[in-house]
Amino acid sequence: MSTTPTRPRRLADVREWHHETDVAIVGFGGAGACAAIEACDAGAEVTIFEVASAAGGSTALSSAEVYMGGSGGTRVQRACGYQDSTEDMFNYLMAAQGDLADEAKIRLYCDRSVEHFDWLVSMGAKYKDSEYKERAIMALTDDCLLYTGNEKSWPFRDVARPCPRGHNLEVEGDNGGPMLMGILEGQVAKRDVRVEFDARALTLISDDEGAVHGLVVRIDGVERNVRARKGVLLAAGGFVMNREMLEKYAPLLTLGNIPVGNPGDMGSGILMGQGAGGALLHMSEGFLTLPFYPPSSLTYGIFVNAQGQRFVNEDVYHARVAHHAVRQLGRGVYLIVNHDDYHHPPFLNASVAGTGETLAELAEEVGLPVGNLEHTVAYYNEHAARGEDPLFHKSPEWLKPIESPYAALDCTPGSGVIYPYFTLGGLDTLPTGEVLTMDGRTIPGLYAAGRTACGVPRTAAGYASGLSVGDATFFGRVAGRQMAEAPSRG
Amino acid sequence: MSTTPTRPRRLADVREWHHETDVAIVGFGGAGACAAIEACDAGAEVTIFEVASAAGGSTALSSAEVYMGGSGGTRVQRACGYQDSTEDMFNYLMAAQGDLADEAKIRLYCDRSVEHFDWLVSMGAKYKDSEYKERAIMALTDDCLLYTGNEKSWPFRDVARPCPRGHNLEVEGDNGGPMLMGILEGQVAKRDVRVEFDARALTLISDDEGAVHGLVVRIDGVERNVRARKGVLLAAGGFVMNREMLEKYAPLLTLGNIPVGNPGDMGSGILMGQGAGGALLHMSEGFLTLPFYPPSSLTYGIFVNAQGQRFVNEDVYHARVAHHAVRQLGRGVYLIVNHDDYHHPPFLNASVAGTGETLAELAEEVGLPVGNLEHTVAYYNEHAARGEDPLFHKSPEWLKPIESPYAALDCTPGSGVIYPYFTLGGLDTLPTGEVLTMDGRTIPGLYAAGRTACGVPRTAAGYASGLSVGDATFFGRVAGRQMAEAPSRG
Repeated sequence: MSTTPTRPRRLADVREWHHETDVAIVGFGGAGACAAIEACDAGAEVTIFEVASAAGGSTALSSAEVYMGGSGGTRVQRACGYQDSTEDMFNYLMAAQGDLADEAKIRLYCDRSVEHFDWLVSMGAKYKDSEYKERAIMALTDDCLLYTGNEKSWPFRDVARPCPRGHNLEVEGDNGGPMLMGILEGQVAKRDVRVEFDARALTLISDDEGAVHGLVVRIDGVERNVRARKGVLLAAGGFVMNREMLEKYAPLLTLGNIPVGNPGDMGSGILMGQGAGGALLHMSEGFLTLPFYPPSSLTYGIFVNAQGQRFVNEDVYHARVAHHAVRQLGRGVYLIVNHDDYHHPPFLNASVAGTGETLAELAEEVGLPVGNLEHTVAYYNEHAARGEDPLFHKSPEWLKPIESPYAALDCTPGSGVIYPYFTLGGLDTLPTGEVLTMDGRTIPGLYAAGRTACGVPRTAAGYASGLSVGDATFFGRVAGRQMAEAPSRG
Repeated sequence: MSTTPTRPRRLADVREWHHETDVAIVGFGGAGACAAIEACDAGAEVTIFEVASAAGGSTALSSAEVYMGGSGGTRVQRACGYQDSTEDMFNYLMAAQGDLADEAKIRLYCDRSVEHFDWLVSMGAKYKDSEYKERAIMALTDDCLLYTGNEKSWPFRDVARPCPRGHNLEVEGDNGGPMLMGILEGQVAKRDVRVEFDARALTLISDDEGAVHGLVVRIDGVERNVRARKGVLLAAGGFVMNREMLEKYAPLLTLGNIPVGNPGDMGSGILMGQGAGGALLHMSEGFLTLPFYPPSSLTYGIFVNAQGQRFVNEDVYHARVAHHAVRQLGRGVYLIVNHDDYHHPPFLNASVAGTGETLAELAEEVGLPVGNLEHTVAYYNEHAARGEDPLFHKSPEWLKPIESPYAALDCTPGSGVIYPYFTLGGLDTLPTGEVLTMDGRTIPGLYAAGRTACGVPRTAAGYASGLSVGDATFFGRVAGRQMAEAPSRG
């Protein structure tokens, strides 16, 4: 399936160490960089091995939005008038991740989230004390704070007091990723951290009891045995670029057409970790989304399936819409809007499946059951006029009868509309980053973070922008500290 | 997580072999028994280790229905007037398993299915040349053949010509399991197969290259090293009885309340195989069902969700209904029927959530949105009267307007209604039973079959009764032959 061998090299077969370090980190993205900084600051000798010729990983390709809050609020939240509570953040994330939630990770993430914000600021990350009030995927201005999840929508608004927790760097446009990685790379460069680029991690080195003592890396075409006295951190991303792995482990994600990741997201860290005895969690899960807003006016529309029925409250986060859209029976997902409310969405690339002065005209053009679509819209309109949505409890601010003329945007997977995606399954770890076996033991010397691990975000149904970079940077830091404090072997 | 250690014992640490055999089989259920018979008939020395005090496994607890057909039909199919084709069977199973389908396994299963029928008959299994024509989960008479999947319902009926493929033994009531296991155990007893009961497999024994040479078994409180010259077959069932594993790997299944399995289904085979380097597939998947028929008259009803909307064609297999029922937003799943069509289902244990002369009365009693339920039923009735279902394409034979007085059966998970379940995820194997690593290599000496492997059935959405026992017995046989032909080591 892959050129990465999953079986570790035996320690007893290692005749020579070509390089020694305390902490070896595979991958110089957000997780690896943060781990390196913390491990170094805690006194450990650190080496990063990055398969590409430059730092960045998938964090550099992202918006670098970070989901943070709790503890009375980050500086930005407080400046914007929000007193976020740790319990609200915790209860929200637990509900959003649902039966996949990792309570221990969510607890630690919420407890230390404001500290994480302060640390990012101390590294040089600049966040403006301002809120971006539009419903958007990210702030394209230099504003900081916005709602990026499902906090204000049913059923989550009934579980925890909503608060915006998406933090965007002070930069115009979608340029947060390169900026954050520039900051983190600068901090790594200031420290005594050795970085090897164009260095491909091939396999781990384990002893006969399974403990990890290092890894084999190929640099300049030569295999080198690297001893890691305190441990190896796998922070090599997910497997969104490995088509064979996707088809085998996460086939639903192949409905997506825009992989979000860098070419190194081949699952190599996951494969190496599993080969060393690590358990894998939720390999079928991923972020799969339908970025139908901005413009936020499209939220006034309603999504219908091939039956012409609604299936979700349209005010939720775009990935939650996608999660339910791809689970509808029959082929067809459409966003029905008033033609005048329609503005071309910048990301979606959806074609207009039909238009009509009447719903019957629209339904016939699109190929939807006429009477059912007519009822769906009539029922929705009747209640929307009263600020009610008895079916899916869409928030009153997004309720408005859909008037003629009508338009239907084709959001059917495969129709040309974009469905970005990346993987969320990976190695089972403790909050410390220690990799677990299936019988619940830790594997001495082996750690994982970022999308190589199964972290806080585990399902598109409860995803929020900022959770993946938040998880990667936060748990990268935790793992870095944990490794620095681990006993040195050899 | 479990007392079963996942890490194999090192071959180099084995000082003494307490027992030697060609083929060691863990588990004396359907898969293990069939493997033993075939391996023995192919000339191998075989030992079965069973943790319980008797043979049976989960096959003995099942109806022992077997899904078979193709190649012009089994003897029973032909006698009942069905000329089944291999391509129809293949196309149906591929469509039913959808994006989880294992084409190679399905191909082999379909190609040799009639041979498997003949083999079961040659072992002593008795199948009457008769058809059970009712829509049912199993034949409670001694009749043999019935439709047990989604063959006749949308969208599958458009993919392949329908044919009944569920084969029930000639026995009254739900007594096929003990009968089939009695037959297979008798065949094992007739052969020179050593059987150790009360023998708990603890871990595999692997060499430094990962090849499996045997296993450690505890008998009478003493650990014994068992050398398996040709290989070890893990046929130890799934993990339906391991609550911790379920919550971690298949949390959706915890909506179920009736585990289908025996106390040994603790995932021990899966844990041992993964520890030896085996990849796991689709660990979150399972059979989860809502056995709402018989009586078949309930199929005239319609399922609605908390929105009062239909979500599936009600003529599908009961597990397909459950698959979609548990994915609906909001709490509530109800079967709406005409009160006079209502007959107490023997399995379901559903309470009547409400009754009414009018739909408004019913909706209010149940707590459903009145106008939406009224539309759902009116729209359904209007088309049903014409033999049409524009939404979900329910077959005309099950279309009949639902008249007053109405009743709603509460099918909400957690309401007391039964949702039987078992696991479908397991070790990734070739059709031969050889266990694969994540990088696509086989592990010499390691095989898996039955629910320890991820076999033909992989999703409740496309399940058919008879697929699990069919898969276990068929691929158990294949693995038995494969192992007997493997080179002998040591």
